[in-house]
Amino acid sequence: MSNRRGLLFVVSAPSGAGKTTLVERLVGQLTGLTISRSYTSRAAREGEIDGVDYNFVTRERFEAMAADGEFLEWADVFGNLYGTSALDTDRLLESGLDAVLVIDVQGARAVRRRGMETTAIFVMPPSMEVLERRLRGRSKDSEAAIKERLRVARQEVASYAEYDFVVVNDELTPTLDGLRSIILAERARLVRMRGEAEKIARTFV
Amino acid sequence: MSNRRGLLFVVSAPSGAGKTTLVERLVGQLTGLTISRSYTSRAAREGEIDGVDYNFVTRERFEAMAADGEFLEWADVFGNLYGTSALDTDRLLESGLDAVLVIDVQGARAVRRRGMETTAIFVMPPSMEVLERRLRGRSKDSEAAIKERLRVARQEVASYAEYDFVVVNDELTPTLDGLRSIILAERARLVRMRGEAEKIARTFV
Repeated sequence: MSNRRGLLFVVSAPSGAGKTTLVERLVGQLTGLTISRSYTSRAAREGEIDGVDYNFVTRERFEAMAADGEFLEWADVFGNLYGTSALDTDRLLESGLDAVLVIDVQGARAVRRRGMETTAIFVMPPSMEVLERRLRGRSKDSEAAIKERLRVARQEVASYAEYDFVVVNDELTPTLDGLRSIILAERARLVRMRGEAEKIARTFV
Repeated sequence: MSNRRGLLFVVSAPSGAGKTTLVERLVGQLTGLTISRSYTSRAAREGEIDGVDYNFVTRERFEAMAADGEFLEWADVFGNLYGTSALDTDRLLESGLDAVLVIDVQGARAVRRRGMETTAIFVMPPSMEVLERRLRGRSKDSEAAIKERLRVARQEVASYAEYDFVVVNDELTPTLDGLRSIILAERARLVRMRGEAEKIARTFV
C-alpha cells in the first residue's frame, strides 16, 4: 500500500441522518481508512477533544487559513465555521491511507471544483418524516433549530444526483455494510489493483 | 426492485482459482442475485443435476443453439461445449434479478461485443505457484491436464486489464467479501438508486 496514493471518499448527509456515527464505525471496521479531521471555529463541546474530534481554532485563525486558501472546502454551518485542510488531506493520501471527508453538499462541490478525484457518497434518510423523528429524538435542539435543520436537509437531499453512490440510512447495520462495500469495491477497481495484478501476472510468465 | 432491470455481473478466473465455490457462496449470501445457468454438451458428472448445475444437452442440440445465435457466449473448454443462453439471461434481468455469468476471458469478450452492460470481475490466484498447488490438491486431473490448465491460466491471467475489478483469491472469506462488496456497491450506484432516491427526495418537498 505504501507506494500507492490513497483514495478520497466524500460522505454527505443531511444533519440528523447519523453520518458521524456511521463514518466513525466505518473507520473502526476498515484498516487503511481514516477521517481527515476538520478544523472548526466553534468551542469544544463537553467531551470533545482537540486534535481528536476536531482541530479547534479561533475564528480569527480559521479566517486567516481560509484567506490563505488552506482549506479544501469550508462552510458556515449554523454560524460556526468548519473546514478541511488541503495539506492534512494530501499528507494522508500520500501516506497511502484512504481518507473520508464528512462534508456537506457545498463542501463536496468545492472539492470537485478543485479537480480532486473523489468517490462521493450521499447518505439519505428513508424519508423526511424519519429524519424529523430522529432530530426530535436527539432532543438537543430547540424547535427553531429543528425547523432550520429540516429546511437545510430539504436543500441537501435535492442534490443527491451529484453523488456517485446513494445509501439509504434505514437501519445502522445495513447502512454501514453499504458504505463499507463501496470502500472495498473502490479498492478492488482495476486502476487501483493494477500494480498487484501485474505482479501476479508476472509469476505466470 | 420489480420495475428495475437487474445488473449483469461477469466473473472470470483461471480454472482452479475456485470460482465455482466462490460464486455459489456469493449467491447464497445475497438476495436478488442469481447465476445464469449454463448449457453444456458434456455428460453430467456424479452428483450433478440437470437444470440445477447445468442444462445438459446433446452436442447436436448445443451446436444447433449456437448456430441459431441463442448463446450470449459459448466456448469449447477442454473439448466440452459450454454456453450462456441470451434468452434465459434476459429473462432473469427483466424479472429484476441481478445475474452472474461465470465465464472465461473469451466469453467475457463475446458478451461485451454484444454491447451488453456488465460489471466484469477478474478473480486471480495470488501466484502461479499457489494455483499449481491448488490444481494438484484437487488431484482429479492427470499431469497433462494440470499442465494444460496452467497453460490456459497463463493466457487468461494476462487479460486481467480487460475487467473492471480485480479480486485476489487468497483466503476464501476475504475474497467472498470482496465480491459481495462489488455487487452491493454496484447496487448503490446513483444510476441504480435514482428511482428510490427521487421518491425519498419527494417526501421533502
